[in-house]
Amino acid sequence: MKLFVIKIGGNVIDDAGALDAFLASFAQIEGYKILIHGGGKIATKIGEQIGVESKYINGRRITDDATIDLVTMVYGGLVNKKVVAQLQVKGVNAIGLTGADGNIIPATKRPVKDVDFGWVGDVETSQLNVENLKLFLDAGLTPVFAPLTHDEQGHILNTNADTIASSLAVALSPDYNVRLIYCFEKKGVLESIEDESSVITHINKAKYAQLLSEQKLFEGILPKLDNAFAAIDAGVSEVLIGDAKDLLQNTRSETSGTLITK
Amino acid sequence: MKLFVIKIGGNVIDDAGALDAFLASFAQIEGYKILIHGGGKIATKIGEQIGVESKYINGRRITDDATIDLVTMVYGGLVNKKVVAQLQVKGVNAIGLTGADGNIIPATKRPVKDVDFGWVGDVETSQLNVENLKLFLDAGLTPVFAPLTHDEQGHILNTNADTIASSLAVALSPDYNVRLIYCFEKKGVLESIEDESSVITHINKAKYAQLLSEQKLFEGILPKLDNAFAAIDAGVSEVLIGDAKDLLQNTRSETSGTLITK
Repeated sequence: MKLFVIKIGGNVIDDAGALDAFLASFAQIEGYKILIHGGGKIATKIGEQIGVESKYINGRRITDDATIDLVTMVYGGLVNKKVVAQLQVKGVNAIGLTGADGNIIPATKRPVKDVDFGWVGDVETSQLNVENLKLFLDAGLTPVFAPLTHDEQGHILNTNADTIASSLAVALSPDYNVRLIYCFEKKGVLESIEDESSVITHINKAKYAQLLSEQKLFEGILPKLDNAFAAIDAGVSEVLIGDAKDLLQNTRSETSGTLITK
Repeated sequence: MKLFVIKIGGNVIDDAGALDAFLASFAQIEGYKILIHGGGKIATKIGEQIGVESKYINGRRITDDATIDLVTMVYGGLVNKKVVAQLQVKGVNAIGLTGADGNIIPATKRPVKDVDFGWVGDVETSQLNVENLKLFLDAGLTPVFAPLTHDEQGHILNTNADTIASSLAVALSPDYNVRLIYCFEKKGVLESIEDESSVITHINKAKYAQLLSEQKLFEGILPKLDNAFAAIDAGVSEVLIGDAKDLLQNTRSETSGTLITK
């Protein structure tokens, strides 16, 4: 059974028109699907209004007490429930979730070494409880995840949406033929960063080794590709990196983005 | 099969100690249970910080665009997910929901007559979709509802928590023996408003008629009792009005609050 695990980033969340178009495409996907959304700039904006400053160390956000309340409100409430309501009107029986709900994604508060990142959760894929998620899918429900988990000690934790998406994809791989789709701001992995038409339509491990040796790839894409192959090594059938606007095309066998396989 | 549908108000939500004690009692209830929480003053407080004024007409809150976003954040995100995380640590496999999730509680935006209440939803109990809720209960999940519904046209609606509780209780009555418990700030319905020990432990319709004719009841309690009998006429087995602190006692056959039956 095919399952699409789809992650959209904050840039789509922040743009009402782009979000609506994306959700319309998402609604048209047949069969099992799960959506994971990022946060968007709205949390920063509301944070400024209530006096919660965004704090960063080495480019990584620090989630203090005030910040976890902020993102719980904005990601888990405002963004998540708006997406659910908008999917419902498009005929998708969506159910909004965090990793705390049904204890689907327990996580560990990141240990303090040099930096205390605060209420940030690291996920161990083997700890996920996806039984109820399968039940939801079978009941015709479409789970929509905010990028939040919990520590099983009463605290909500901030967790990277890409990580939630890949963890869910891996945990569901024994039961489904999973295509994990990362929507981002480009058409796919490009051979030439300046040329949007230079999408590499298919990368397997051999091809990746070749591209690396030729030093053809833009450095920023390497972590995404490493994560994609990690997901594939852990059981995910296919990973697709592509533009949110091309979502429907990217659920098919001929994709316009970059399909990554073993 | 017994099912407890339990509503707690904002006064418990606003008091961390009271909430923790309440959730500890809630966790000890065996069998099927559903929690519905009110909002609390935290929405007003955060509203002031982000410049959303509370507007009232004839004592009833007006839910404009900014206010529905505020309560979606605070009720649907901050309060709901905190309660879920705190129940998880107490061994309850809670799942936080609004009426939009799984389309469980579709509602109608209140028609504008003399007053435009804004994004406020009126619920028609016969429209509820509780099939998935039964599935959740059977899977060992405990639903926790924020006082929000949706209009099936893409908008979240603000809905009275008492109404959500009674609607869920009625809609689940064909499948469960439902006790609907309203936690409020007194021990129960009092014969004498100044005397907390004057709880009337049992009211049926005959007794209610008698109390009314004797003009013994405090006027403020009459709407609550009318709503309770409306729920009972619609199929709910028992309604209990009592103190949040007495929750466990009020799930038993000998209650410390007021048990209302046909």
